[in-house]
Amino acid sequence: MVRVGVRERIAAAETPELVGQEIMLAGWVQARRNMGKIVFIDLRDSSGVVQIVFGSALKRGSELLKTLRPEYVVRVIGLVTKRQSGQENPDLATGTVEVQAQILEILNQAETPPFEIGHDRPVGEDIRLRFRYLDLRNRRMLNNLTLRHKVWQFIRNYLTDRRFLEVETPFLTKGTPEGAREYIVPARHYPGKFYILPQSPQQFKQLLMVAGIERYFQIVRCFRDEDTRGDRQPEFTQLDLEMSFIEQADVLNLLESLLVALIKAVTPEKTISHLPFPRITYAEAIKKYQTDKPDLRRDKTNSNELAFAFIVDWPLFEFSATEGKLVPMHHLFTSPRDEDVKLLTRSPDKARSKQHDLVLNGFEIGGGSIRIHQADVQRQVFEALKLSATEVEKRFGHMLEAFRYGAPPHGGIALGLDRLLAILANEPNIREVIAFPKTGDGRDLMMGAPSELPDQQLREAHITIRKAPS
Amino acid sequence: MVRVGVRERIAAAETPELVGQEIMLAGWVQARRNMGKIVFIDLRDSSGVVQIVFGSALKRGSELLKTLRPEYVVRVIGLVTKRQSGQENPDLATGTVEVQAQILEILNQAETPPFEIGHDRPVGEDIRLRFRYLDLRNRRMLNNLTLRHKVWQFIRNYLTDRRFLEVETPFLTKGTPEGAREYIVPARHYPGKFYILPQSPQQFKQLLMVAGIERYFQIVRCFRDEDTRGDRQPEFTQLDLEMSFIEQADVLNLLESLLVALIKAVTPEKTISHLPFPRITYAEAIKKYQTDKPDLRRDKTNSNELAFAFIVDWPLFEFSATEGKLVPMHHLFTSPRDEDVKLLTRSPDKARSKQHDLVLNGFEIGGGSIRIHQADVQRQVFEALKLSATEVEKRFGHMLEAFRYGAPPHGGIALGLDRLLAILANEPNIREVIAFPKTGDGRDLMMGAPSELPDQQLREAHITIRKAPS
Repeated sequence: MVRVGVRERIAAAETPELVGQEIMLAGWVQARRNMGKIVFIDLRDSSGVVQIVFGSALKRGSELLKTLRPEYVVRVIGLVTKRQSGQENPDLATGTVEVQAQILEILNQAETPPFEIGHDRPVGEDIRLRFRYLDLRNRRMLNNLTLRHKVWQFIRNYLTDRRFLEVETPFLTKGTPEGAREYIVPARHYPGKFYILPQSPQQFKQLLMVAGIERYFQIVRCFRDEDTRGDRQPEFTQLDLEMSFIEQADVLNLLESLLVALIKAVTPEKTISHLPFPRITYAEAIKKYQTDKPDLRRDKTNSNELAFAFIVDWPLFEFSATEGKLVPMHHLFTSPRDEDVKLLTRSPDKARSKQHDLVLNGFEIGGGSIRIHQADVQRQVFEALKLSATEVEKRFGHMLEAFRYGAPPHGGIALGLDRLLAILANEPNIREVIAFPKTGDGRDLMMGAPSELPDQQLREAHITIRKAPS
Repeated sequence: MVRVGVRERIAAAETPELVGQEIMLAGWVQARRNMGKIVFIDLRDSSGVVQIVFGSALKRGSELLKTLRPEYVVRVIGLVTKRQSGQENPDLATGTVEVQAQILEILNQAETPPFEIGHDRPVGEDIRLRFRYLDLRNRRMLNNLTLRHKVWQFIRNYLTDRRFLEVETPFLTKGTPEGAREYIVPARHYPGKFYILPQSPQQFKQLLMVAGIERYFQIVRCFRDEDTRGDRQPEFTQLDLEMSFIEQADVLNLLESLLVALIKAVTPEKTISHLPFPRITYAEAIKKYQTDKPDLRRDKTNSNELAFAFIVDWPLFEFSATEGKLVPMHHLFTSPRDEDVKLLTRSPDKARSKQHDLVLNGFEIGGGSIRIHQADVQRQVFEALKLSATEVEKRFGHMLEAFRYGAPPHGGIALGLDRLLAILANEPNIREVIAFPKTGDGRDLMMGAPSELPDQQLREAHITIRKAPS
């Protein structure tokens, strides 16, 4: 969009369509080759790479040529010409053309980067994360970010077309005593009090159903302060979705249609092994596959095969050895199956729920349920779990209060988008599809987080650092 | 989507098109009127309200009729009929029809809500926020959330069409010693260390330009732990946007085109007073209007008038009485105007910058700048501010290091979307356009945040609460 005279900046990828035209390009020097009196550079911008020839056509900037080094930022005006027969480069999308430079301008210099850009040579992950802004210059990473954007856009437009409303829910909210550990945030105006960062908008999405929104979704960041294990991130992105006046099949059908349409639109080279997605009961999965995340691919060596399955009819409760009693398999608001409500008093361990998980190639990529909306069923669940009225009130009072004012039947699902994207992009871990990921142990090597803070900042937050027990 | 036999659920707003058909509806009882043997209810769902008649057609559920109370959740099967002439209700979008109920089913009961839904009677804001899930049942709030969704969708599609990439940036990041106060988050795995929640993705968006993304945007939550004043929220939503290889006019033109198209699409009843948006220098604004946020509306009583203006040519620095020296007016990376670079050494207080603010009806709704991308200009700015090399390295080392590897010319803007939306929705404050806002003093009255946490949670975060000085 910079104009020099009447010229508008052209993307490198557009050059094959512009043979015979004088154009302006801007970007990074990816490589430079001296061939006697002629110098070639590969100019990279966000669209791709094109070869620039500095020869007899060069009218301005020839004195700069010898200073050009990799990753210098340049602007070039020149004439797009067809390459001579035999000189085409089939490895380059613009390989049929080159640009005969007339004017060269250096917009910025660059130090020698810690690793080469545009090459497939292996680079250690720590150095890639430390210099993530250089790593992102590689086409693989840009492709991943582009795919990410396309997936997010597709999902938003698909759900908007089906009258879903994207609603933002708070990140500074109240702690719940459930599940994985939460990040805590001291409240400066309320000494001794804290917000927490939510693990998911679970409570808010149910409250939005009580609010009559009927069809909610959100592509939303979630926070989980877990112990380091496997391919996790302290913050990750999920598609959160909830609907009212529906049954379990409606949620599963919607998600299946969305995913089939998405894959056709953004990664048409992928094939889906089983359509419709198999719906397997938990009992059957365990019996047949010895896991609740079966990998149903027919050919595990085919990187373009996607095998989805829904796992349904989960046990409502499981026995917790640490707590010495039954605990919810999913969460407290998950509905039992209608025919199993009668088991809640007699043999709650036998009751099955309306929980549903989505499995892809052996990964659990989503989970949700139909929720309990009726007070008497909710009460029976609390009783089966031997939760006292006081305890329930303290932990879930605000939710139970909301449910008393006309909660509709509702349910939904949450989909782990980072994992879905990593599978679609054929990447081995979710860090490859996140612009600025943290290491497996929660550090941002580029920014240097977490870090120590001045005592003044802790003072204002009304906290002190606890001394380690000596 | 619930099916009873072959029937699919119909939205209340669709009924005028379905005269003569048997349909299924589900929603909330907004009002009930007994007229002898006939009972009327206003049934509300997310699409609107329709009148249901329980008369001689009622085959199932008549025994439930006398128990129906406001905000009960019901499902009704019935026949859509035209109302008799003279019985139409012009205040209701569905006022030409009513539904002769055949089957009534109560899906859930409701206690009497603390305020009536669907009435314009004034309700105190604290009670609205305490029961936000009931407040959101009011059409005004649902309209605001719907407009919010439409605006976000429009912006995303507009920028996607122009080859912008939405990139998510981290929420758990490193503290900067600049600007307003930051929320801090203890890092459980690193005793004594903290993440912070970012006030904006400022550093990340500049790093994305260094990464060669060229056109970035994000609709993103930002966090500011400010002292309570005016119409602020601890977390708010902004459109963040940055471009490479552009000049200031490119940023302003893009934003102007986006806003003009947006308003035409989502609030066509609004008129824009001045097109193109006036571009007023800071000096001129102060001289002519005695403010840097002039309200340029021609008729301040017209709630549909929108007067935008860009304020440009800001002073690069201002004198801070607290610090007793010059500080950046915007931030350290804001570029001076080309012709003012020479003033940096001689009279830095006279230098003007490439900062730009966007003003709407007297509110500052956006701000940004062209950034410094050249090391020698950046060095002169540090010198003008008398920042030592050690101090600079400690505070901005990671940014300056990135800029050494080939930073392109770049700049951008951030737009406060909550404020823009409040103005478009004719709402007096931004709480009315946020689903779950906090009070002016940062409390969530519905969830009860912030709150005290069990000592175990503080122990895991390696912090203790600081005793107030006695």
